[in-house]
Amino acid sequence: MSLFITFEGGEGSGKSSVIKVIEEKLREINFNNYITTREPGGIKISEDIRDILLDKNNTTMDERTEALLFAASRRQHLAEKVIPALKMGKVVLCDRFVDSSLVYQGIARGIGIDAVMNINSFAIDEYMPDVTFLLDLDPEIGLMRINKNKDREVNRLDLEKIEFHQKIREGYLFLMNKFPSRIIKIDASKDIESIASQIFNIIIKRINSEKS
Amino acid sequence: MSLFITFEGGEGSGKSSVIKVIEEKLREINFNNYITTREPGGIKISEDIRDILLDKNNTTMDERTEALLFAASRRQHLAEKVIPALKMGKVVLCDRFVDSSLVYQGIARGIGIDAVMNINSFAIDEYMPDVTFLLDLDPEIGLMRINKNKDREVNRLDLEKIEFHQKIREGYLFLMNKFPSRIIKIDASKDIESIASQIFNIIIKRINSEKS
Repeated sequence: MSLFITFEGGEGSGKSSVIKVIEEKLREINFNNYITTREPGGIKISEDIRDILLDKNNTTMDERTEALLFAASRRQHLAEKVIPALKMGKVVLCDRFVDSSLVYQGIARGIGIDAVMNINSFAIDEYMPDVTFLLDLDPEIGLMRINKNKDREVNRLDLEKIEFHQKIREGYLFLMNKFPSRIIKIDASKDIESIASQIFNIIIKRINSEKS
Repeated sequence: MSLFITFEGGEGSGKSSVIKVIEEKLREINFNNYITTREPGGIKISEDIRDILLDKNNTTMDERTEALLFAASRRQHLAEKVIPALKMGKVVLCDRFVDSSLVYQGIARGIGIDAVMNINSFAIDEYMPDVTFLLDLDPEIGLMRINKNKDREVNRLDLEKIEFHQKIREGYLFLMNKFPSRIIKIDASKDIESIASQIFNIIIKRINSEKS
């Protein structure tokens, strides 16, 4: 069996912290047949692409260029890291995937979900996630969390106005209604431990149902 | 009036030399309402993308990543350079455009024309070329020309085997049959001067017919 799980949510929704706690819980029960990753995931070509995307000097970047670059980075990370792990029958926990592009470029930038889905379908081929956890949070709380975390470098997207982040939240909720069997909404205003426990329990059920 | 003209052909087919001679001819008749360009065309973001594409160390690049990166570079060059020139009513002479991706990634790499056209439609939006000159040449002659030219740095694509370049030629001829009203085949085995004259005459006719 293999299981492709993605985590989505706005800035500061706590995805990476939650994934860390889930990883600890998996180790506690001696489940080692998994990887955690996020784009660009240490894949050199994807890192190179990400450098262009996050370069604060690239202020003239066209929104369609941005969408194509995210799709390219996604493709390479998928091809080099995710697909090999899935083929080995692993559980893959991935921080952000195709829904991020649908929401950030498709909805918030106004390119349209269908157009962005189109290029992402090319990028991911048949590899849609099996389950997606949407960490839903008021963006004002999310941005406050980010500002408290001094270790985290502020990137180009953090600098967008609050209205942008509000659109992101609404976009995700729209997608959840579009893909109700894949996307599970999680209340991300709770503490990390209880969010992680909730998700961990769902993952364990899925792993067991895949086995049987 | 504006006119978007592209030049296509395999490696060593003489596109850049021909464009230079056409440019001289346009200057001779005091026609200055044009630009010549080629992707990445001095556009920083497109140059950054091109660096990733031509990096000889990037041997693990997935073919879909490659296609998405070409589309991204194309989009940015189009948005920053070609569209502004067309909006100013200029004639744009562009060395390689969407057909290069259809042939190199779609046919020669085997991704398929429709899939590559799909992501390129996203990239170019409604900006298809008005006229495309296909410099058709036996790839063995093309590669011999390249090897003679010591100034030109050999890149990743030049290193492909002759079968690859043969597929490129066949791919272009296939496209010509698919878009007969847009793509004009030119015998590129002739000398540069006569090729340039032939194309120059067609361009002048098009400029005059656009005016009237």
